[in-house]
Amino acid sequence: MTLINENYLHLEESYLFSKINQKVEDYQGKNPEANIISMGIGDVTRPLPHAVIEAFHRAVDEMAEKETFKGYGPEQGYPFLRRAIIENDYKPRGVKLSLGEVFISDGAKCDTANIQEIFSKDNKVAITDPVYPVYVESNVMAGRGGPLDKEGRYKNITYLPCTAENNFQPPLPEERVDLIYLCYPNNPTGTSLTKDQLREWVDYAMDNKSIILFDGAYEAYIQEERIPHSIYEIEGAREVAIEFRSFSKTAGFTGVRCAYTIVPEELEAEDTQGKTHQVNRLWNRRQTTKFNGVSYPVQVAAAATYTKRGQREIQESIGYYMENARIIRENLKEAGLEYYGGVNAPYIWVKTPGMSSWEFFDKLLEEAQVVVTPGTGFGPHGEGYIRISAFNSRKNTERAMERIKGLEF
Amino acid sequence: MTLINENYLHLEESYLFSKINQKVEDYQGKNPEANIISMGIGDVTRPLPHAVIEAFHRAVDEMAEKETFKGYGPEQGYPFLRRAIIENDYKPRGVKLSLGEVFISDGAKCDTANIQEIFSKDNKVAITDPVYPVYVESNVMAGRGGPLDKEGRYKNITYLPCTAENNFQPPLPEERVDLIYLCYPNNPTGTSLTKDQLREWVDYAMDNKSIILFDGAYEAYIQEERIPHSIYEIEGAREVAIEFRSFSKTAGFTGVRCAYTIVPEELEAEDTQGKTHQVNRLWNRRQTTKFNGVSYPVQVAAAATYTKRGQREIQESIGYYMENARIIRENLKEAGLEYYGGVNAPYIWVKTPGMSSWEFFDKLLEEAQVVVTPGTGFGPHGEGYIRISAFNSRKNTERAMERIKGLEF
Repeated sequence: MTLINENYLHLEESYLFSKINQKVEDYQGKNPEANIISMGIGDVTRPLPHAVIEAFHRAVDEMAEKETFKGYGPEQGYPFLRRAIIENDYKPRGVKLSLGEVFISDGAKCDTANIQEIFSKDNKVAITDPVYPVYVESNVMAGRGGPLDKEGRYKNITYLPCTAENNFQPPLPEERVDLIYLCYPNNPTGTSLTKDQLREWVDYAMDNKSIILFDGAYEAYIQEERIPHSIYEIEGAREVAIEFRSFSKTAGFTGVRCAYTIVPEELEAEDTQGKTHQVNRLWNRRQTTKFNGVSYPVQVAAAATYTKRGQREIQESIGYYMENARIIRENLKEAGLEYYGGVNAPYIWVKTPGMSSWEFFDKLLEEAQVVVTPGTGFGPHGEGYIRISAFNSRKNTERAMERIKGLEF
Repeated sequence: MTLINENYLHLEESYLFSKINQKVEDYQGKNPEANIISMGIGDVTRPLPHAVIEAFHRAVDEMAEKETFKGYGPEQGYPFLRRAIIENDYKPRGVKLSLGEVFISDGAKCDTANIQEIFSKDNKVAITDPVYPVYVESNVMAGRGGPLDKEGRYKNITYLPCTAENNFQPPLPEERVDLIYLCYPNNPTGTSLTKDQLREWVDYAMDNKSIILFDGAYEAYIQEERIPHSIYEIEGAREVAIEFRSFSKTAGFTGVRCAYTIVPEELEAEDTQGKTHQVNRLWNRRQTTKFNGVSYPVQVAAAATYTKRGQREIQESIGYYMENARIIRENLKEAGLEYYGGVNAPYIWVKTPGMSSWEFFDKLLEEAQVVVTPGTGFGPHGEGYIRISAFNSRKNTERAMERIKGLEF
């Protein structure tokens, strides 16, 4: 009989959101009058910028006429969008990129999940804990995870705990690792790394010939000067890092789907004979063989985020969410709860008052009718925390926080 | 140092289209006045149907308002599109599908490339030769190919030659195989399988507990009654086959990106302990972990292909291309050339008059200023053939064929 990929059998069933939904449904069933507010979801709520909508319509119209119709585009994305990314997201920060280093895709989820394919099964993978689950799971599927232990850790993955105890700064691995996933500003903790802190990782990667897979999906939320927007602001990073970015959280593209990945030409990896290979060429081969480019109207829409009007509208939206974050932080402070993040990211990571993540989840649902995300959904070291999202309306945010402030802990 | 996936080193560099472009450029450089017509490209040329354009605009407008804005959608696709597929593409042919068996994606290229991930590295793969190169290359990248020999064959792949000698009917494998890629109507040969011929493969798969990966991207071009539109028209196929379909060639979506894959609930594969697993669950896990759904406006646009007006416009476009195919066939006949396909597919597969694929390519370019695709680009058994595409304007098609008819062979 045809055999399955048995690595899938190691995967933990991802019950997180179905379990949350079940609990919310049960509660609502018993309390039909309850007005439940969800502060758990990591998805934008504000509509697309007008500049984006207009460009989107224009591109759709192009598809209606023989003269302007577009069939297959370049798998790597249209040069107009790649150029706009280079000119707007990198050049102003002193980072020079060539067109061939930018790959447009339909999502940072796909790219961060697919990138491991171009590397050997024998590479050792390190991830911060807690973190976005896709890094771990895509590696488990490929056979780099090994079996799951009772604490919810895959045997062959190196976990880098990030907790209040180490101020959410991932410790350098004790044993050498090959691939290091870093996500900053971080999902779920909402914390960030300063240039000096990130430099330690670039130095580690250079010393150990490791590769950093840097997920900057929340870059647009950075408010403080000392926080780097791109890993390439750090000297030497072009030799050791791949960077992932997305229009999802920047411009409300979670339902539109557009992202990009930077693979610098200097980045190399070896074969078992010791010969070096350009990682950029490998990724290009992967993308041209297994991907067919992003929808043309979507790429035109994404490019419109770089117009003056687009930028102004984006800043307005981000300002709105970050004001929510400020309100959340302020109320948590008044409630006497310990919290982190929410300054350069739309997430606030709250320490539970002496109970488990799920116990605190239940308390907030039952006593405040507020839904949050239990920290354990993001890894073993998420235990004892919950995540509150700033993606919501002002009214809901204020109402939810008023309720939480009224509780006894 | 970080190690690369060394399977990539086995990959043949895909020079096909760059070599074609180079030759065309060189010729045009030396003959600036030459009016070259490309009959080589497998990409649609007609604009999107009006019904699609209108729906596309409507969905973009929804994204502009808070009340109708859509963020993350289901990774498997919106139920409205999955239901439309079931009701329109399958129910009328007597094929019953449930919602959970339909997975929307951004392209059949991605799906046919990614599907192998859920199966073991140790599975034996069979592919027809010549064929769309993605099946082979995605398996080589995953380690199922082995080294490339001098004839351009990967050692561990089972090739099923399809040539004029066997009337382009792939022979059943001599040794048992696990995964069988079939593409019908076929790219590049333009030939198809009747129900009886396809039944042989379903029976083979049932007898050998193999799985058929059936690529039906050109289904909409089928004209003859005896040709099945779906492999599920064959009894038992739900237990042995996955089917891939696309809006690309059906509705001009090559630049818009939308496709779907059917994984029946009955389809099972084993682990090495002999325990059976639902393939549908594995694919669902793969897609929910590594993919984030198709752009919402694109899904709305795709659903509009099933409206009465959408269907009428699609039929008109397909009729237009198939009339091109008829004109190509007629002229090839008058030119005394041997050709195949073009009856249930937009491709015509032409036997070269006693020369290699590239020699015939050169002759057509230099003597008729017509660009075609050399058959060797699709596999070793493509040698001695070229592919002519019906995706073109009527005028270009007629002009190109007039020129070819005027040549001496």
